[in-house]
Amino acid sequence: MRLVYHLPLSPFSRKVRLFLAEKKLLFDLRAENVWQRREQFLAINPAGQVPVLVDEGEVIADSTAIGEYLEEKYPTPTLIGNSVLARAEARRLSLWFDLKFFQEVTVNIAHEKMMKRLMGQGQPDSERIRVGKENIHYHLEYIGFLTARRSWLAGSDLTCADLSAGSQLSVIDYLGDVPWTDHTDAKNWYARLKSRQSFQPLLTDHMPGVIPSKTYADLDF
Amino acid sequence: MRLVYHLPLSPFSRKVRLFLAEKKLLFDLRAENVWQRREQFLAINPAGQVPVLVDEGEVIADSTAIGEYLEEKYPTPTLIGNSVLARAEARRLSLWFDLKFFQEVTVNIAHEKMMKRLMGQGQPDSERIRVGKENIHYHLEYIGFLTARRSWLAGSDLTCADLSAGSQLSVIDYLGDVPWTDHTDAKNWYARLKSRQSFQPLLTDHMPGVIPSKTYADLDF
Repeated sequence: MRLVYHLPLSPFSRKVRLFLAEKKLLFDLRAENVWQRREQFLAINPAGQVPVLVDEGEVIADSTAIGEYLEEKYPTPTLIGNSVLARAEARRLSLWFDLKFFQEVTVNIAHEKMMKRLMGQGQPDSERIRVGKENIHYHLEYIGFLTARRSWLAGSDLTCADLSAGSQLSVIDYLGDVPWTDHTDAKNWYARLKSRQSFQPLLTDHMPGVIPSKTYADLDF
Repeated sequence: MRLVYHLPLSPFSRKVRLFLAEKKLLFDLRAENVWQRREQFLAINPAGQVPVLVDEGEVIADSTAIGEYLEEKYPTPTLIGNSVLARAEARRLSLWFDLKFFQEVTVNIAHEKMMKRLMGQGQPDSERIRVGKENIHYHLEYIGFLTARRSWLAGSDLTCADLSAGSQLSVIDYLGDVPWTDHTDAKNWYARLKSRQSFQPLLTDHMPGVIPSKTYADLDF
């Protein structure tokens, strides 16, 4: 069976789970507490990070590399796009959320509120959380800007851009820190994404010791 | 003519220049001082970052998306690989250097020594430079580990993994902070990369106000 090493609230693990589910590929999940640096896990991925996909005995690491691998090996339905230019746009946006949103929002909020506790690194830094909460607005505006013109972030079809953005946002939403009421277009896009079958397993995830926000699993949030 | 907005010592701009040159595609370069946030530039890339490729009137942003675009539009010679698994390995390593090496080494050394001065952000933080110089050793060891077994980082052919790693390292080498003498295997790999025709334009680059190390442009360093 296909296997994904993951953490329930790792946005990049979530992206890979969505990728697999949208392609209707079955997989098992194994939680890997990466900070314990387990030797057998480091042997298969020296970066010591999740997600890692094991597919037919082959180890694929890095969520972007996994997405491209799945797209090449199981091309239908495409999650990148149907033309060279559409694919460039989907990849640009996917990496925007993987890199910029992650650095500016996810690290500031989720690392402080959640990972520090799990890893025994002390109290959250409230200044960093404040910065993350400030930064999220312009990302939600950008999502609103894009989806006012297009069904999905990169065009008329769902792509890796939506999966990247939704994965990051879902982690912040778990913590109750997405100001949805200020960003109606972004909220409508997220509601459509959240209602997809691929998204449902994410909504039942729980991180030990961290309670999800009241509306996290609510499709009519 | 194809156009690349770049900065001479941006590692991601360098990666795109190498990608184009290895595929024998001609292009013009335009230096973009991204910190000035020029309006016409933000209009074509709202992320405000280099590199940006303009190819036949189409704008492609993000160095990874540009690499995938070039690979799809101009597939020969491949710079990702010839099989699905080889491509996954090349992408994993390429992203390793783009993300991990960049965060752990390039940001600490190049941002402190060079970007701060250009952007008028004050004096370099010597503690961060020290951390960057410490971190570079294990990346060079990893390059040595890989190239003791393979001709190039991801296998028997040159790929985006080599271009990513070489781009990051070339920036640190410009500043004279690569401890080559401690890492012979990595040095031999870099010497082969540096001797390629695609690499020569990078070796004539100068960043205003920052003098390159004595051996930067030397093929027998």
